[in-house]
Amino acid sequence: MASPEFPSLERSLEEHLPPDELRNVRRILLGGEPRKLSLPAEALAAASELDFELAAFGFEAAEEQLRPARLVRVGLVQNRLPLPPCAPVAEQPCPLLSARGRSCPGPSSPSPRRTGPPPGCAKGWPGRTGWWWCRPSWSGTRPTGTSCGTRPWWCPAPAPSWARAARTTCPAWGTSTRRAGGGRGEGRGGAGAGRGGAQRPPFPQATYYMEGTLGHPVFQTPFGRIAVNICYGRHHPLNWLLYSLNGAEIIFNPSATVGALSEALWPIEARNAAIANHCFTCAINRVGVERFPREFTSGDGKPAHRDFGYFYGSSYVSAPDGRRTPGLSRTRDGLLVAELDLNLCRQTGDIWNFKMTGRLGMYAEELTAAAQPDYRPHIVKE
Amino acid sequence: MASPEFPSLERSLEEHLPPDELRNVRRILLGGEPRKLSLPAEALAAASELDFELAAFGFEAAEEQLRPARLVRVGLVQNRLPLPPCAPVAEQPCPLLSARGRSCPGPSSPSPRRTGPPPGCAKGWPGRTGWWWCRPSWSGTRPTGTSCGTRPWWCPAPAPSWARAARTTCPAWGTSTRRAGGGRGEGRGGAGAGRGGAQRPPFPQATYYMEGTLGHPVFQTPFGRIAVNICYGRHHPLNWLLYSLNGAEIIFNPSATVGALSEALWPIEARNAAIANHCFTCAINRVGVERFPREFTSGDGKPAHRDFGYFYGSSYVSAPDGRRTPGLSRTRDGLLVAELDLNLCRQTGDIWNFKMTGRLGMYAEELTAAAQPDYRPHIVKE
Repeated sequence: MASPEFPSLERSLEEHLPPDELRNVRRILLGGEPRKLSLPAEALAAASELDFELAAFGFEAAEEQLRPARLVRVGLVQNRLPLPPCAPVAEQPCPLLSARGRSCPGPSSPSPRRTGPPPGCAKGWPGRTGWWWCRPSWSGTRPTGTSCGTRPWWCPAPAPSWARAARTTCPAWGTSTRRAGGGRGEGRGGAGAGRGGAQRPPFPQATYYMEGTLGHPVFQTPFGRIAVNICYGRHHPLNWLLYSLNGAEIIFNPSATVGALSEALWPIEARNAAIANHCFTCAINRVGVERFPREFTSGDGKPAHRDFGYFYGSSYVSAPDGRRTPGLSRTRDGLLVAELDLNLCRQTGDIWNFKMTGRLGMYAEELTAAAQPDYRPHIVKE
Repeated sequence: MASPEFPSLERSLEEHLPPDELRNVRRILLGGEPRKLSLPAEALAAASELDFELAAFGFEAAEEQLRPARLVRVGLVQNRLPLPPCAPVAEQPCPLLSARGRSCPGPSSPSPRRTGPPPGCAKGWPGRTGWWWCRPSWSGTRPTGTSCGTRPWWCPAPAPSWARAARTTCPAWGTSTRRAGGGRGEGRGGAGAGRGGAQRPPFPQATYYMEGTLGHPVFQTPFGRIAVNICYGRHHPLNWLLYSLNGAEIIFNPSATVGALSEALWPIEARNAAIANHCFTCAINRVGVERFPREFTSGDGKPAHRDFGYFYGSSYVSAPDGRRTPGLSRTRDGLLVAELDLNLCRQTGDIWNFKMTGRLGMYAEELTAAAQPDYRPHIVKE
């Protein structure tokens, strides 16, 4: 992994590359020059005062003859835990929501093709119109074996935050909810839209949560069709595909992942999913180090330790045509706003046609065979 | 896309970033600092004389208690067509093979853990031991509608090159073979090992070639288990997965793809496949512009043109742990050698366990349903 203190790949390039080389490098790295949205001075001042990064980009699509642009904005909130990880669960969300909730004005300029706010966006968080937001869950991401004094390491989704969210926003959540006798990872999409099961709880929770049994549901919201592929689920291309086959236009991946383990994978997986499935994907990680009062081990032969590693942030949004936003920093809290024209999903599909050229029937047959205990791999020998 | 004349992302970074920033940037971009293999002066001189790029990297694995290192070397040959694309088919391969075949010595140093050449490597191309090579096919990549004077645009795999290859090397081929009444895209793995069908011929050939019906075979060779995912097949994560489920340790993706269309996708897809499937992947593209004597159109509403676009090279190798080599340049012929310890496949699987955590049975059921014409997507409405 890069050093924990290394703030940002993109910033490093901006500081050192000559303009024409920077342009070429960004085109290769980001798939194009992302369109920056202008931010009002009020928003920038709030970000400065509250010490968080604020960035906003737009993904345009071509004008269509029969459909107007379908513009929505998503907001990806990347944060460190506002309190130590073993602070009472009920107290965890409040500092974040109260500190940031009042003061994150959005981009000022409606885009040229935007004729009004997207439908159903009257209620926004944080107090503005038309933002979805998605953040790593506070709960369900404690390393196995961690014990916070007398508290259990698992943290049921705190009622206050759920209630607050339900009142004020159309959130996409990824969390792990403990129930009597165990629990399952869950994603929620849109206030009241429903929930879907995590396809595989992240490894530290594998002994606490069972795999979901709810399939790959997609939530039809006033903003579009969204899905939540929780954390570890990003490693499996089939999860993204199945959400896409159910119609997802935006798939959120709320994650909590650390450098030495996954930083080589992070910029690749969600972006590949956007490409392969003609949809937008939102990859959200948190930042910083979380220290626990008691030592634990990670089963990797290394010494016992009190933190899980460095959460490297770097949240980003990918578009169906392979473009992506720069990442938020590796070191700071941040809010990444992206304006998406959902028409780009079908437009990209019309060019590449992966939904047509993917041979679902053949894949299904081969997978069905491969899932059998007596499967014999198709190996041709000389 | 980046400008056609922009040679290399990696070179630009090396030239302009301070050393410590370069190290951090490379760790993020490449997933680590790849180990450079030392090249003998003889090889470097040959590359200079013959004007091609020569680079060599190694992916080590941890020592194991029960298995020795399984070192193999792959060679990715990236080239522009040596003759104009409408030169006689039989003449196409000869200039390349004859110019380069005599003079590409490999890396000099056996790695510290290497105790000898890998088994079965006595016959090598180009005249050395232990290289696999894989290059974009000469045939089957002409844009639809191109007509080369009185010659048909399709180019059956030239007999001389097949014969030469069969005599001298253990190649992995991707090509499109025309047969009476049509043809199918094919991959061949290892001399005589067999062949497998392209899962989907690239779009320009879609009216000339049918999809393959041979499934996703893997070729057991003396070098390890390899597969060939031809060109367009890289866009479908299921192709990579099914080759992997059949045991592939290295999957080659011989491609011919141009900038405006796919450069945003190129560094992502094969690398994601290596990550998701705990295997090595080799992405090979060719370079340059190929001009045809007659105009053709690409069905995109743009003016008729005489070339298909800029083939941007950038061939690379990805490892199962998410690391990758720097790419070959965007502008020059090149040979990229990578020394792979195939033990890294299982070692990475032991850490991430995607083969275990992927829910094949559930995916198979959902895909089977989704492949039906009356499938109703699983959409939850508010």
